[in-house]
Amino acid sequence: MNPNFDAIGQEFVRHYYNVFDDKMKRETIAAMYHPTEALLTFEGQQFQGVAAIQDKMKAIPLDNMIRQCTTIDCQPTVDGGVLVTVIGQLKNNAENDKVMGFTQTFVLKPGNGSFFIHHDIFRLALHNC
Amino acid sequence: MNPNFDAIGQEFVRHYYNVFDDKMKRETIAAMYHPTEALLTFEGQQFQGVAAIQDKMKAIPLDNMIRQCTTIDCQPTVDGGVLVTVIGQLKNNAENDKVMGFTQTFVLKPGNGSFFIHHDIFRLALHNC
Repeated sequence: MNPNFDAIGQEFVRHYYNVFDDKMKRETIAAMYHPTEALLTFEGQQFQGVAAIQDKMKAIPLDNMIRQCTTIDCQPTVDGGVLVTVIGQLKNNAENDKVMGFTQTFVLKPGNGSFFIHHDIFRLALHNC
Repeated sequence: MNPNFDAIGQEFVRHYYNVFDDKMKRETIAAMYHPTEALLTFEGQQFQGVAAIQDKMKAIPLDNMIRQCTTIDCQPTVDGGVLVTVIGQLKNNAENDKVMGFTQTFVLKPGNGSFFIHHDIFRLALHNC
């Protein structure tokens, strides 16, 4: 297990949202996913591999969002990777919109001198209550 | 990858909470975790192995809770396991308490003819807003 799992996970989350939340940069985010094995589940929709994930990223209607991460929990995996779970909030900057909670889970694995995202599950916390 | 990952994950979640939410059964839940490798992060506190996890389970003050799972997302892992992320709500049955959102992420791996929990991260969604 990688003893630096927590620092790796925390730094990954910071970098990931810096790219994702910048409309000019977001199309480059697919390079952070493993080219063929990466799985994305976005609000229940499933995508595999960089090409499908990149297409989805372009279509996500989350522009001008203010993001706040409430908690970031990391665990090391036996193959030297990191499991990361984020809880946070999103608010639309452009409209007087309500705050939405979200949860995102990543599995990172070492590769090419860095880490690739192998698993990504994103959900808005919409409980209908 | 296990083609039945979604059914395995959904059934696991149903079974896990059936045991966890029953005060008479909860002490048996440690048997669902891998004896030595299992990692639990509960509200930021970290525990490894069945003995430490069992001690923590006994001490969790979540009795008489009504649990509702809002979404359960599953992905297959390359080693035949399943990554599961649950979003849901907890409400204390005994008091006129407010509803709390929660997120729980599991990584299950095949072993001993079934599946063991290797990773478990639990957080109440308390955003202080």
